[in-house]
Amino acid sequence: MKQIMKQEFDYQRDFTVATICSHSSMQIFSGAKLEGFKTLGICIGEPPKFYNAFPKGKPDEFLTVNSYTEINKFAEVLREKNCILIPHGSFVEYLGASEFEKLELPTFGNKAVLGWESDRKKERDWLSRAGVPLPREYTDPNLISGTVIVKFHGAKGGKGFFIARSKEEFQNKIAEHRESYVIQDYIVGTRYYFQFFYSPIREEGYRLSKGSLELLGIDKRIESNVYELYRLGNIDIEPTFVVTGNLPVVIRESLIQKGFEIAERTIEESIRLFGGLVGPFCLETVVTDRLEFYVFEVSARIVAGSNLYISGSPYSDLVEEKMSTGRRIAREIRIAQKLGRLEEVLS
Amino acid sequence: MKQIMKQEFDYQRDFTVATICSHSSMQIFSGAKLEGFKTLGICIGEPPKFYNAFPKGKPDEFLTVNSYTEINKFAEVLREKNCILIPHGSFVEYLGASEFEKLELPTFGNKAVLGWESDRKKERDWLSRAGVPLPREYTDPNLISGTVIVKFHGAKGGKGFFIARSKEEFQNKIAEHRESYVIQDYIVGTRYYFQFFYSPIREEGYRLSKGSLELLGIDKRIESNVYELYRLGNIDIEPTFVVTGNLPVVIRESLIQKGFEIAERTIEESIRLFGGLVGPFCLETVVTDRLEFYVFEVSARIVAGSNLYISGSPYSDLVEEKMSTGRRIAREIRIAQKLGRLEEVLS
Amino acid sequence: MKQIMKQEFDYQRDFTVATICSHSSMQIFSGAKLEGFKTLGICIGEPPKFYNAFPKGKPDEFLTVNSYTEINKFAEVLREKNCILIPHGSFVEYLGASEFEKLELPTFGNKAVLGWESDRKKERDWLSRAGVPLPREYTDPNLISGTVIVKFHGAKGGKGFFIARSKEEFQNKIAEHRESYVIQDYIVGTRYYFQFFYSPIREEGYRLSKGSLELLGIDKRIESNVYELYRLGNIDIEPTFVVTGNLPVVIRESLIQKGFEIAERTIEESIRLFGGLVGPFCLETVVTDRLEFYVFEVSARIVAGSNLYISGSPYSDLVEEKMSTGRRIAREIRIAQKLGRLEEVLS
Repeated sequence: MKQIMKQEFDYQRDFTVATICSHSSMQIFSGAKLEGFKTLGICIGEPPKFYNAFPKGKPDEFLTVNSYTEINKFAEVLREKNCILIPHGSFVEYLGASEFEKLELPTFGNKAVLGWESDRKKERDWLSRAGVPLPREYTDPNLISGTVIVKFHGAKGGKGFFIARSKEEFQNKIAEHRESYVIQDYIVGTRYYFQFFYSPIREEGYRLSKGSLELLGIDKRIESNVYELYRLGNIDIEPTFVVTGNLPVVIRESLIQKGFEIAERTIEESIRLFGGLVGPFCLETVVTDRLEFYVFEVSARIVAGSNLYISGSPYSDLVEEKMSTGRRIAREIRIAQKLGRLEEVLS
Repeated sequence: MKQIMKQEFDYQRDFTVATICSHSSMQIFSGAKLEGFKTLGICIGEPPKFYNAFPKGKPDEFLTVNSYTEINKFAEVLREKNCILIPHGSFVEYLGASEFEKLELPTFGNKAVLGWESDRKKERDWLSRAGVPLPREYTDPNLISGTVIVKFHGAKGGKGFFIARSKEEFQNKIAEHRESYVIQDYIVGTRYYFQFFYSPIREEGYRLSKGSLELLGIDKRIESNVYELYRLGNIDIEPTFVVTGNLPVVIRESLIQKGFEIAERTIEESIRLFGGLVGPFCLETVVTDRLEFYVFEVSARIVAGSNLYISGSPYSDLVEEKMSTGRRIAREIRIAQKLGRLEEVLS
Repeated sequence: MKQIMKQEFDYQRDFTVATICSHSSMQIFSGAKLEGFKTLGICIGEPPKFYNAFPKGKPDEFLTVNSYTEINKFAEVLREKNCILIPHGSFVEYLGASEFEKLELPTFGNKAVLGWESDRKKERDWLSRAGVPLPREYTDPNLISGTVIVKFHGAKGGKGFFIARSKEEFQNKIAEHRESYVIQDYIVGTRYYFQFFYSPIREEGYRLSKGSLELLGIDKRIESNVYELYRLGNIDIEPTFVVTGNLPVVIRESLIQKGFEIAERTIEESIRLFGGLVGPFCLETVVTDRLEFYVFEVSARIVAGSNLYISGSPYSDLVEEKMSTGRRIAREIRIAQKLGRLEEVLS
């Protein structure tokens, strides 16, 4: 990858920030514009009309493809425009992890994280090594003793997850499924999604062994249908967990410290394992009534919850006003460019 | 109406933005002030003291009436001050649709929408013609097969609505009621309230056959008592649905496109049917776990959820900073005034 | 107290705003900095590392103590720096009400409120005299007729509270407890936490017999585990009520008036009883589906929910932009200083 970059990527010319038109793309484009970059949106067919309603979130130009998996066919075009790709959840989902890794284009962040994050086993290994508190996993369903959540490999946005309150309920529900899965203790508490940003090149602030850590916001997720089953009382509807939106929140100040400690260990371990998770990431946590934290997932890129904070959050406002995650990405590229350290934030 | 306006409304003098002191009035006044208008608040008895606590939301002057239904008696006074009335939910509720329509004062938006929106049958007809996905309605209660919601005509803010999980439960609950009602399928999912704005005179942005469409925010509603029944566990309390407040949210970016498509069809049909729904309106939607949208209601004016966004929302910030719905209304009047097209935004 | 102040507190030099590093301290420090004060954070052991991530919320210097109860040992050091202490929920909790009252340092607000607020009986007496609508209390458990909530004296953040749906359930649950408690009717509705600010020296705005009243924001609380039991359906888990975070909300405009009326009566009564609750306070309310208000608690200082509004709320934005409660405290000190009326806002 770096080979390609060195040959074909022009570090002197200015860049075009490019991403797929979905997920958090308006935030990414608006942030890039604020930092003075050109922007390019990749879409299938006609550019989505709704961008016209949001001038600050609309990219300067569109590139139409037939399928997101053929982005590599346009590598030359994108290199001519000196594009840096910004990955987001849908970007990786649409391409698939392996196609994404093959992209012969400079990409923000460290693509090596994908192998560790898209495989639940490796992700757990990474977080365990980091000393992050995780829900217990069951390899033998016969050992299930309380309430568990069952997650399918590759399932996105909570789709297909189910909760079982006993071994028997698990056996009944799993019978319908063929996919591979993991069984985890369901931790009873309140979930918080921490939107962190790790910069390997920034030397101020919350320092790590290398670079520093920022918290740009916290959100909660709204899942269809489970979030509104409360309106129906004691009705027998199977809950589903498809994320449809997000709520802004703040957390007790004393819990922020714990959040940072977990994030710090997660990043330090990522540096040892694969050179570091660079840029935005999300710790998906649950806080019990004893104020204990558990991490049930890590997202290694910008999350949709950050769309709440396109003009800043109660946390990012304590760093710099109007600093969204999208803008922070663009800022990181800008800083790296000035320092001549782009290789550390791109891959 | 236009007759009256032409005779008595002075298009050369500057306007006073006027509304009833309730609902979203502080937002309307603050927005009007930012756009340089004078403001007047209509109230019963003494001006509400709490306005003093919010200098930017307090109108320049108050007009005291004995009852909101007698506003027309003050038509001359209001015309002297060159007032434009801004309708909001409480305004229309307090006057009643027919009294509201009789107001002999220039009013923001198209009053003709009232006949289509206040009658559930005509509203459904409008939305059906527009191709908007709607929950199924039952004319014969014997055909009820799943969970349904029963809504009474003229009921405001969810008051008196009930949910029934079977034909039998419906029969038991309806026995207590004498009002006319509709029975709809209860769509299981998560509800989102889209705060749109349609301008018939703006030519940029998300274009329609005439004018353009904006999204100024999305919220969720907090209903008493159902929203907090969760705290009581499996207790047998009949849920009620009286809106008491609002929560700010964002929705998956891929769902914004669908929201705009539905809004576009709704407006285009309104133009065909009655000359167009002008200004703010709210699509009240539910999103299933298959990410399908249903619209269960349309509000044809500023909604209270927009009070969340008095200084901008994650959506309006991508258009222009600090653009509330209240301010957008004032801006629309200002633009129309400059273009000499006030007749298109007033009625 | 005033004796000490007059002797040792230098009203001519500028002040250092000091508080314990927890709860809402970043908001307090950031607000103080915006108003031009020096800031000092009191912490146990090493300064918490996470402050480095939030430069605007980090105090200029730290004072390390072995235990918060020994702050008085550092009184001389703090007086040398001309410190004003800002109390917050954790501050009072860590010291205990009686230790807090003994602090021989100028403290923002009226310490006399503590005796009235930390004792549930006196708090109820105060609010009853003020004519504030309160949930019924039961002195005799045999009279319990509906759903009740049981609160333990001194319990913080909802810890240990329980709900009982009958006399029998109450008897079963109380058997495990030895602490003293109160039994209140559980009011079914939606809870809103009003963040008010009372200034005894400001003469504009919402006037009281002396000074004036402001509303800086409204929030809802997220309690672990009860807030997310909805995800588990009809499962038999005992709900707990430990606050872990907060959600931003707005309330129906017509309910704001009622909120102010209750806050006004609460303050007027506090002036009569103990010279007034000065500065920020929170009315913890529940609104029924008949839009009736009940107050179930008053917090006599800055609450953590105000951390949502570090850059302003939909309410404070109608007063002055970017006015957090933390900043409002600093502003009050600044105004009092200019007017030579510091004695009225410190104790």
